[in-house]
Amino acid sequence: MIHFSNEDIDSFHHLYRINLINSCSGYKSANLLGTKSINGIENVAVFSSVTHIGSNPPMLGFFLRPTTVLRNTYENIKKTGFYTINHIHENILEDAHHTSAKYESDISEFDQTNLVSEYKNNFQAPFVKNVPLQLAMAFVEEQEIKANNTILIIGKIVGLHVNDNLLEDDGFINLAKGNIATINGLDGYSVPRQNKRFVYQRPK
Amino acid sequence: MIHFSNEDIDSFHHLYRINLINSCSGYKSANLLGTKSINGIENVAVFSSVTHIGSNPPMLGFFLRPTTVLRNTYENIKKTGFYTINHIHENILEDAHHTSAKYESDISEFDQTNLVSEYKNNFQAPFVKNVPLQLAMAFVEEQEIKANNTILIIGKIVGLHVNDNLLEDDGFINLAKGNIATINGLDGYSVPRQNKRFVYQRPK
Repeated sequence: MIHFSNEDIDSFHHLYRINLINSCSGYKSANLLGTKSINGIENVAVFSSVTHIGSNPPMLGFFLRPTTVLRNTYENIKKTGFYTINHIHENILEDAHHTSAKYESDISEFDQTNLVSEYKNNFQAPFVKNVPLQLAMAFVEEQEIKANNTILIIGKIVGLHVNDNLLEDDGFINLAKGNIATINGLDGYSVPRQNKRFVYQRPK
Repeated sequence: MIHFSNEDIDSFHHLYRINLINSCSGYKSANLLGTKSINGIENVAVFSSVTHIGSNPPMLGFFLRPTTVLRNTYENIKKTGFYTINHIHENILEDAHHTSAKYESDISEFDQTNLVSEYKNNFQAPFVKNVPLQLAMAFVEEQEIKANNTILIIGKIVGLHVNDNLLEDDGFINLAKGNIATINGLDGYSVPRQNKRFVYQRPK
């Protein structure tokens, strides 16, 4: 095995380091976050940090830096209180990844890609049409990570739309049946084809 | 598509709800966290919430509830300051998942499975032997999520061991080449076989 020490990592060229550190945590979720500004401009952006926080109440979190391209998402969430989480699947990989480009806040990524916005159940924020799993989210709280000023946004799931064929009898959403992607590092996408489930474990 | 409202989700049987909510965030990282208590008892436990926080300094986070089975990990990290993150790969899926069983703190999961502990570079916490990617972590800070008392643990990467064949020229760690797993929900494991990388995106 190759070993990199703390000092090695600090000494790397920054592009080498961001590739290395972004891919060393394991596979990540692949989501498009949809928001709409108070001026009515729709925004959609790829995120790979959406993570389960709790089931009761149903809450998810994600991380962002307020000073990056992603600030449109942050500002829209803080001002409106709502956002959507839409799963990236095989057919929209290129358009989804393109939303990482740094567009100004008056330009909607929906106009720059083939992604189409969709409104349901009078929810304020736009969903991405034709994806197999869509979540309506309400902002709950934010936490600042002191060590690097990253912000953790916590939201509550207030609506869940899922394609019938992904949902199994016990509530399990089979992501492989939706050809949903997972992200490796900053720019690698995989589409797992099957999964294996294990039973609840008790001490031997 | 099937639609579940906030009220629907609240009304579900708790097992249905935990399956649904745990699988709706997308694919998750599949890691074994290794720790050693101040009494010398080794602990290893499966986590699916390890997430990238930042590359400079290199930091990762994960979530836990202090009142669950996972409290051995939490107590060991808080008392010693150190832990390891080890990637779950195809050959150890069953043993890795078994570490979710609720063992008492005086029993090591290394003794209850075929997982083997390994020490390197005088690091205090045990790695899991023969996994393709191992990280040495130092505790940095914790944040409490007020809405449900979940704790976010932030750690700095102080050492990184990776199998030669996973590491590409630009620092990208190709998880597929290590047959590294990803988790769907509470108990579903997938092993992606390939990935597609996209170039850095700029506005059109």
